[in-house]
Amino acid sequence: MSRPNLHVYAADQALRARARAVIPGGMYGHQNAGPLPEGYPQFLERAKGCRLHDVDGNEYIDFMCSYGPIVLGHAHPVVDAAAARQQALADCQNGPSPRMVELAELLVDTVEHASWAMFEKNGTDATTKCVTIARAATGRRKILVAKGSYHGAAPWCTPNLNGVPSESRAHLIQFAYNDIGSVEGAVAEAGDDLAGIIVTAFRHDNRVDQELPDAAFAHRLRKLCNERDAALILDDVRAGFRIHLGGSWEPLGVRPDLSAWSKAIANGYALAAVLGNERFREGATKIFTTGSFWFAAVSMAAAIATVNILREGQAIPTMERMGHLFRDGLAAQAKSHGVRLRQSGPVQMPLVLFEDDPGFKKGARFAGEAAKRGAYLHPWHNMFLSAAHREEDIREALEITDIALGQVKRAFGDAA
Amino acid sequence: MSRPNLHVYAADQALRARARAVIPGGMYGHQNAGPLPEGYPQFLERAKGCRLHDVDGNEYIDFMCSYGPIVLGHAHPVVDAAAARQQALADCQNGPSPRMVELAELLVDTVEHASWAMFEKNGTDATTKCVTIARAATGRRKILVAKGSYHGAAPWCTPNLNGVPSESRAHLIQFAYNDIGSVEGAVAEAGDDLAGIIVTAFRHDNRVDQELPDAAFAHRLRKLCNERDAALILDDVRAGFRIHLGGSWEPLGVRPDLSAWSKAIANGYALAAVLGNERFREGATKIFTTGSFWFAAVSMAAAIATVNILREGQAIPTMERMGHLFRDGLAAQAKSHGVRLRQSGPVQMPLVLFEDDPGFKKGARFAGEAAKRGAYLHPWHNMFLSAAHREEDIREALEITDIALGQVKRAFGDAA
Repeated sequence: MSRPNLHVYAADQALRARARAVIPGGMYGHQNAGPLPEGYPQFLERAKGCRLHDVDGNEYIDFMCSYGPIVLGHAHPVVDAAAARQQALADCQNGPSPRMVELAELLVDTVEHASWAMFEKNGTDATTKCVTIARAATGRRKILVAKGSYHGAAPWCTPNLNGVPSESRAHLIQFAYNDIGSVEGAVAEAGDDLAGIIVTAFRHDNRVDQELPDAAFAHRLRKLCNERDAALILDDVRAGFRIHLGGSWEPLGVRPDLSAWSKAIANGYALAAVLGNERFREGATKIFTTGSFWFAAVSMAAAIATVNILREGQAIPTMERMGHLFRDGLAAQAKSHGVRLRQSGPVQMPLVLFEDDPGFKKGARFAGEAAKRGAYLHPWHNMFLSAAHREEDIREALEITDIALGQVKRAFGDAA
Repeated sequence: MSRPNLHVYAADQALRARARAVIPGGMYGHQNAGPLPEGYPQFLERAKGCRLHDVDGNEYIDFMCSYGPIVLGHAHPVVDAAAARQQALADCQNGPSPRMVELAELLVDTVEHASWAMFEKNGTDATTKCVTIARAATGRRKILVAKGSYHGAAPWCTPNLNGVPSESRAHLIQFAYNDIGSVEGAVAEAGDDLAGIIVTAFRHDNRVDQELPDAAFAHRLRKLCNERDAALILDDVRAGFRIHLGGSWEPLGVRPDLSAWSKAIANGYALAAVLGNERFREGATKIFTTGSFWFAAVSMAAAIATVNILREGQAIPTMERMGHLFRDGLAAQAKSHGVRLRQSGPVQMPLVLFEDDPGFKKGARFAGEAAKRGAYLHPWHNMFLSAAHREEDIREALEITDIALGQVKRAFGDAA
């Protein structure tokens, strides 16, 4: 099969040079392409459906969906039209528009545990608000957090402690995801100061295999919070609306008290939300929380359109079908090439890692070769499918991964 | 003069009732109209230039400008066109667009102390990042903060401590704005652990007279930071681009090491920025900082258009001229009615308070009567002018304030 690497990156390289002059380190955060292998562009020009174009005109089938926000596909016409209609009226005013009430009503009607909603701009705003509400409502301080879980980039949760006083982590107690004994130990340690337990929808820590939550683990968290009158907080920022519209733990039959949302709720428009039940409504009124753009209407109009399309019911099954197709195809290719890889997590949020690959050298080679040929995968972060992926997109991507896996085999031989 | 109160608020009341069911307390944060007097709508429908329309069709001359973001006027055609052009390409992708580099270059060229830029979504993100960079760069922990200054709603700075562990405030030392002795005392208290001093562009604390910074105070801060190799952080979130394009302390001849921006930089599109000098570039690379929507292109395109229009040079002088017209007119009316009021702060960010008004009863009566007649003022928060305000808008607003001050006089008599 011939699918040559025809990509050039001249415009991207020129922009990277300019960026190095005016942005510390040239780029920062999760969208810094610096650590990614050769073949990845730093700067992107446009996107439509599941296709991206970088600044050199190279096209990619997108398996990152902007690290999650794009759940219906880039530039979804219905979502963008709703946003444009609202933009023609107003976005950021002295008060919210009616869209805020409409969206709160829609989310309360969609997410099973929720009886109220509040809005923000960052996923970190939402997780921080959940923790603050739990503390304000209970009058207690201890929050249980799974070791290695990412809940955002604020001082209390950022994975990098540079510039962060250790006191920012006061009253956090760690447990191990899916380990009931460790949670029980942490609850005992918290004693009568337990405010809540925050947990991601599944274990999607960077650079390690993803892990689905055990039902027994989830139910035990619920029971412990009930017994201690503490808040069960579901961090659904990354997984929300890709697993189940009613909340990612609905299939387990476990409902949180508070949940944090962002990423996919407005198909790429900047928005986050905290949803809560009646028990925490009063606590939510006790805290001070605001932001200059938190009441802006355009992203709420986009969220209303997004949730309404999701509620039509095709999006999640489509992502699952495409995810299975991709996973099964990759598994068959790996077997055929004699390359040992591990696939984990929900198929619509797939992670692909290689056996015996501590420095991600195989993963980087695989993803880099794929990028050069037009598939935007990720070597160590979970990927995201969208409702815009079609069978022909997955098949085309699999043509590319077949070549990329062949390259891994050629480079690593028996060790691959 | 007859300018009757013809406003009705039926649609607004209906929305407030719906909001109470699905939003804790009915609304939250700085855009909660609950504490505002009768006459204020909670929900707004559309805006253009300096005119707002609420959901009942009532029109207002806007003196809040969305609490700051709207610096060129609502729905500015050039800004909105730039945003729409970018939206047609892409907004939130797997990486930034070239707009990020262009905007960083433009800000570095515009703001005198800056040699690099980083972007976020909330003003709080920017102030928090400045503090974190100061700590990461210096390897020290103490941050000096003026008592009563608002730097955002994160645990380390929110004015309401409900749900916030006291440890979140570890290593903050307070001083009094414009009080050199208090800063020197705080610096001495910090000893060899001083990471930085954060200070607002002027004293714009809620509910008290605004205070411009003394030049001697600003220069002393700069000198103390130089002597201690600490960061001088200017929180220009609220005042940025309304005082001086080069940074709000340029007229004082004092340049910060780090500055936080948000509000006005994209004329209402959600964006924040941290700007810094060479000394703190490396420190900025040491921290982990990111957000799902921080690299999105539309708000950056809007910011480029906004800054380019601001650089044409007419916006700030226009706001100042309109601010003087409004302040002088109000002062004359107050004298004529025998009402004692105090006006403070830069004329383009005016605050109007009444003498002997501890519960803001006079302020609320004044602002409420004005709102009912079509001027959206604020009884205890500083207001904001925009470049879209014209002399006829100010004169029309003054017709309204004349009636409102008359109502205050009638209600409070000799005490007014």
